[in-house]
Amino acid sequence: MNKKVILVNRPRGPIKDTDFKVVSELLNTVLKQGEVLVRVEWLSIDPAQRVWISGKISYIPPVAIGKVVNGFGVGYVIISKSPAFKKGNFVFGLLGWQEFATVHASGLNKLPSYENPQRYLGVLGITGLTAYFGVTEIARPQKKEVMIVSSAAGAVGSIACQIGKMKGCKVIGICGSNQKVDWLMNVVKIDGCINYKTEKNLSHTIRKLCPDGVDIYIDNVGGKILDAVLANIRKNARIVFCGAISSYDNDKAPPIHNYPVAIAMSATLEGFIVWDDYQNRFELAVRQLSRWVQEKKIIHREHVLEGLENAPKALAMVMAGENFGKMIVRVVEKVRL
Amino acid sequence: MNKKVILVNRPRGPIKDTDFKVVSELLNTVLKQGEVLVRVEWLSIDPAQRVWISGKISYIPPVAIGKVVNGFGVGYVIISKSPAFKKGNFVFGLLGWQEFATVHASGLNKLPSYENPQRYLGVLGITGLTAYFGVTEIARPQKKEVMIVSSAAGAVGSIACQIGKMKGCKVIGICGSNQKVDWLMNVVKIDGCINYKTEKNLSHTIRKLCPDGVDIYIDNVGGKILDAVLANIRKNARIVFCGAISSYDNDKAPPIHNYPVAIAMSATLEGFIVWDDYQNRFELAVRQLSRWVQEKKIIHREHVLEGLENAPKALAMVMAGENFGKMIVRVVEKVRL
Repeated sequence: MNKKVILVNRPRGPIKDTDFKVVSELLNTVLKQGEVLVRVEWLSIDPAQRVWISGKISYIPPVAIGKVVNGFGVGYVIISKSPAFKKGNFVFGLLGWQEFATVHASGLNKLPSYENPQRYLGVLGITGLTAYFGVTEIARPQKKEVMIVSSAAGAVGSIACQIGKMKGCKVIGICGSNQKVDWLMNVVKIDGCINYKTEKNLSHTIRKLCPDGVDIYIDNVGGKILDAVLANIRKNARIVFCGAISSYDNDKAPPIHNYPVAIAMSATLEGFIVWDDYQNRFELAVRQLSRWVQEKKIIHREHVLEGLENAPKALAMVMAGENFGKMIVRVVEKVRL
Repeated sequence: MNKKVILVNRPRGPIKDTDFKVVSELLNTVLKQGEVLVRVEWLSIDPAQRVWISGKISYIPPVAIGKVVNGFGVGYVIISKSPAFKKGNFVFGLLGWQEFATVHASGLNKLPSYENPQRYLGVLGITGLTAYFGVTEIARPQKKEVMIVSSAAGAVGSIACQIGKMKGCKVIGICGSNQKVDWLMNVVKIDGCINYKTEKNLSHTIRKLCPDGVDIYIDNVGGKILDAVLANIRKNARIVFCGAISSYDNDKAPPIHNYPVAIAMSATLEGFIVWDDYQNRFELAVRQLSRWVQEKKIIHREHVLEGLENAPKALAMVMAGENFGKMIVRVVEKVRL
């Protein structure tokens, strides 16, 4: 049998348990040529999934009603009808919220190491890579530049902060709890931090922390935070749109007003999808990130929920900012090799 | 005597006659070393001036209350205390709304030709150059790409449309009157045109005219038109912020909501100030634009008001979209060489 979480209706506003259903189906073990059957071990829970179930335009087609919720995961090959994979290989790909995934070989990547495979969903996966390419390729920081990062304790933000520090920037984080502020200031050791939930005048506080203006903004949020940063950019600022979580629960993103500042400041606002735009450079980037993790130049947190049926709860927590570290779901205790 | 138009209070909302006053002062002909006294012949009237008198952040410091309104102009040197200029030279620079301007030589450029000097305020001036660098350097169009231009009959937009056509794009204009639509379709000969004032569902109409999406948007407006275009961009779209006229009469720009599309579409939104960012390349660009004008590959319109005292009226017309062509004010009938 294959247990899976399917979408039963398109959520409007915050997701609810009733938007999903856990079902069991007979597992199909008859594969077509080129297909691979994967035992799913870990699932990545990402804000982007809120977009995929909404039906909005994204880089991945919307999840259809009645179908398994799409998502990145790591697992282990149990049957392969592709010469590229064999039984026992650990793989990464869009496996979906289910125990077993039948995927075409072209959509799978072998993991470079079998140690801590869940890392390939976080610091060495899409979120770490988003931070890596967003900072090094789009923002291209120069020494002493001022970088602001929103969702700074999150899976993308926390890595972006640390790459920014390594590149010599003054890094200011924006996050949503005092516990996260503490971690960013005392463990990650960035230069300043704002809890936007208790902050009355975000733009003013940014100005105080960055009196000469902001060169780089790694945006994971959009909306009011983006607008407050825009009010404080300086000449040739680069704003990197990694995500816009403030918009994902709604049909319409929260408005921004300060975009004309980009004219006077010759600023660039650039969006990207690491999965689409940089996939041919993942291997080198993962090697670099691994090295930084080994050297303890990058520290990272994982927030684990146990059991496939907790995937909807995990996504709700991510959307509410209640996770602390990369949110992942362990589908099985340990894959049997 | 020197007649000048001074700012008497910062306008809120549309500008009024009472925001300005025409005064006469004794002309100071005693110059400091390096200064040049210029007889102003033509003034450029530009939406950016609405920003300069508002006190908002711009690339030029705000005009102080009681001071002459700042603005680009062309004129002729009558006294020079700089080795760079001599009596009789035609020059371009920030001359301001006045009959005579005392300017430091470093802020002046000699005109390459004395024929039709007012062209150096339009097609061969800041607006033509904004279109030139916005299209060729920021948008970098490829053949068969789809380009939308707002304020398409305006001083920047009309030149951008024609450069887009020369680069092989399908060009769709957005403008505010049927007379402008006619001119763009039948004289400038672009591929499609929308009168946004009579259009009920702009986003839908853009989708009909550009069923495969928009690659390039030359934005002179911001606000609702920007939002409607964002809803229709395709992968790797480039949005060039040349101006945001919809925001200049207000403290706050009209909101946009569709910026998160830039993530899924890996799009870039980029602002620039041609005066700041490309000044070292003006000479070559003016030569290219002149050639295109001579070869009739670029046609352009000028909208002339006579008399310095009409400068405020000219700016009000530009802000209301009532001009048709580059708005300029003739300060004197003809400069006496």
